[in-house]
Amino acid sequence: MAHIDLGLDETRFPGINGPLRYRPETGKPLLDLAEALLRGPHPLSEGERELIAAYVSWLNECDYCGNSHAAFAAAQLEDGATVVDLVRAGLDAAPVSAKLRALLRIAAAVQASGRGVTRDLVAAARAEGATDLEVHDTVLIAAAFCMYNRYVDGLGTFAPTDPQAYANAADRITRHGYHS
Amino acid sequence: MAHIDLGLDETRFPGINGPLRYRPETGKPLLDLAEALLRGPHPLSEGERELIAAYVSWLNECDYCGNSHAAFAAAQLEDGATVVDLVRAGLDAAPVSAKLRALLRIAAAVQASGRGVTRDLVAAARAEGATDLEVHDTVLIAAAFCMYNRYVDGLGTFAPTDPQAYANAADRITRHGYHS
Repeated sequence: MAHIDLGLDETRFPGINGPLRYRPETGKPLLDLAEALLRGPHPLSEGERELIAAYVSWLNECDYCGNSHAAFAAAQLEDGATVVDLVRAGLDAAPVSAKLRALLRIAAAVQASGRGVTRDLVAAARAEGATDLEVHDTVLIAAAFCMYNRYVDGLGTFAPTDPQAYANAADRITRHGYHS
Repeated sequence: MAHIDLGLDETRFPGINGPLRYRPETGKPLLDLAEALLRGPHPLSEGERELIAAYVSWLNECDYCGNSHAAFAAAQLEDGATVVDLVRAGLDAAPVSAKLRALLRIAAAVQASGRGVTRDLVAAARAEGATDLEVHDTVLIAAAFCMYNRYVDGLGTFAPTDPQAYANAADRITRHGYHS
């Protein structure tokens, strides 16, 4: 059970869903941000952006967000389940583009500390074709998941162990978006 | 100079102001969240909430956000400049209420990892009178500044060294809010 009374059945509204409903004044901008970052028009595909979100959530050891965004990435990337598993097993040998690998390295630096993003990491991403917008959004996706992960775990919310729960959420999010 | 071309004069739009203007699609929810969390109707005063934001920013060593929100707290708390300096010098002996001290301890746990918020930390805040809403918003303010701090530093933005820049921002924010 969460650290506070969310006023709902946490098994029906697991993870971030409880706090978003508990406090709609902050829930709306949190969902607006996720929708803009992960599903708005962008040179990186929805699946690639969800993979950045999952990667940061794994580094933060947030089970709910890691399982959720891994499922959302798997649903939207080609051979998604395999790609997600191989990225989780090790970025260096994972079957992603050189550009996405360089962006995931920037995301990992942001997860540890914003001050860890070096000119070399940015130059390496640029050398693989990353644009300013892609660097910007990678930094903000990684930073945002340092927030979402802490929000979900800092309130001690419920994380389902059944993979079907995350598959169902993936179906909903990929069809109807974060406001659904 | 920032890691990406923000398309503006960074000395006029320092810290987060450049990225917010560079990408208004994400800038709007980021400002909506700050306005709701730090200035919306709440049992914690604006000054107390800004102090939580400053405290987390100090722990993340984000100069721009630390200086900004310390100035915003100082402008809105009684004897604000002294209180801010004494909290920065050490929370245990700082002249804040027992409830705010307990909430700042929760904020520090969130800064390290959402998983660090224990039932004991929450119980200690409750024993000093903290409500569910105050615990919720403390967790989310701390989590949000783990995002804002990483956004500002992960993009290598400019942080003024002149204290007057932060005092001017405090005057603007306290009069007109985060959307000004």
